[in-house]
Amino acid sequence: MSEKHYTLAVIGGTGAEGGGLALRWAHAGHKVIIGSRQPEKAEEAARQLNALLGQDAIAGMESQAAVQAADIAVLAVPYAAQRATALGLAEALAGKILVDVTVPLAPPKVSQVQLPASASCVVDLQQALGEGVRVVSAFQNVSAHKLKDLGYKIACDVLVCANDKEARQSVIQLAGDAGLRGIDAGLLANSTVAESLTSVLIWINRTYKIPDAGIVITGLPG
Amino acid sequence: MSEKHYTLAVIGGTGAEGGGLALRWAHAGHKVIIGSRQPEKAEEAARQLNALLGQDAIAGMESQAAVQAADIAVLAVPYAAQRATALGLAEALAGKILVDVTVPLAPPKVSQVQLPASASCVVDLQQALGEGVRVVSAFQNVSAHKLKDLGYKIACDVLVCANDKEARQSVIQLAGDAGLRGIDAGLLANSTVAESLTSVLIWINRTYKIPDAGIVITGLPG
Repeated sequence: MSEKHYTLAVIGGTGAEGGGLALRWAHAGHKVIIGSRQPEKAEEAARQLNALLGQDAIAGMESQAAVQAADIAVLAVPYAAQRATALGLAEALAGKILVDVTVPLAPPKVSQVQLPASASCVVDLQQALGEGVRVVSAFQNVSAHKLKDLGYKIACDVLVCANDKEARQSVIQLAGDAGLRGIDAGLLANSTVAESLTSVLIWINRTYKIPDAGIVITGLPG
Repeated sequence: MSEKHYTLAVIGGTGAEGGGLALRWAHAGHKVIIGSRQPEKAEEAARQLNALLGQDAIAGMESQAAVQAADIAVLAVPYAAQRATALGLAEALAGKILVDVTVPLAPPKVSQVQLPASASCVVDLQQALGEGVRVVSAFQNVSAHKLKDLGYKIACDVLVCANDKEARQSVIQLAGDAGLRGIDAGLLANSTVAESLTSVLIWINRTYKIPDAGIVITGLPG
């Protein structure tokens, strides 16, 4: 379990990916707050997750209040909402770590890599928020639908990228607390790999008719 | 072993990656020709590879002649030489498959993703050569230094991308013949993943002090 316990605000925790991560982090002993523009939706999502968890460890709040109460914020909203949602929370995010889970999918061709001009939507977000927020890229390649099954061992490593080393280390710990292996994958520019890989995994799922392809890094000790 | 035997021209087969692939393909029963601008360098590389192989299965030729004699050409030259080398061979490549192994590393920061504006140097090459050449992206993430050890089981999958399905299938077979698992990773635009992943693997090698990180796709049958 966790070396360090945080208060985590999961913005977009009403969705499958954010909700699954929230559940696993609460299970590992973190205090978790689901954030949503509509506080009643956040509260309802928290209620459902607490029922799965069997204890009252997850709260629901309006996003701004959730981030204000948290040590670390997690952004798990659709690509189309990523920038506006984060910029709307910029003041509350100041001085904090923001874990961005966003994959820049461009429907309908979601199995084809289509990155923004910078080659990373997370790099774009770091630039928009400025250096006062330590943006970390992670969790893009973890299939949502098994996260809520707490006993399920998901066969997918988490590539963790950030310009700040301490922020990378915190999120590597959070990956471990979610039952996944977090890997130091370098500076934020390296987020390109995780952001583009999701389209390849979707292609592989369709081509080989499997539910959730993942990746594992080989050659590491242990 | 191989379902189908090809004549393969490996341009840049005098280097470690190209030479290692050439050796493994010759071992699997393909006819292999090392191509170089200087035929005597190609012949010398072929001589050394044949000595490792214990039979005379690899020839050396000037690049143009090598491609003309081959069914499939493989480009394994440094990024700086990729475009000029391939365009210089355009006539001989017409109607053929060209497997491009190029990683767009930008020294000295090779552990940081720095893609060209299109997000793929292989997509750029396909555009420069035109639709008459079927460009396939593959082998960017396979560490060169174990390829020449024929008995060594390399723990790294090969992401194979191309716009032509039949060309993808041929190169998936070639990956298997080299003792690696080739995976259909989609259209050529998806080459972004393999091209950027090499920098992340270099970062992981340095950070975790390991010789050759690789990737494996999970969730596939068998």
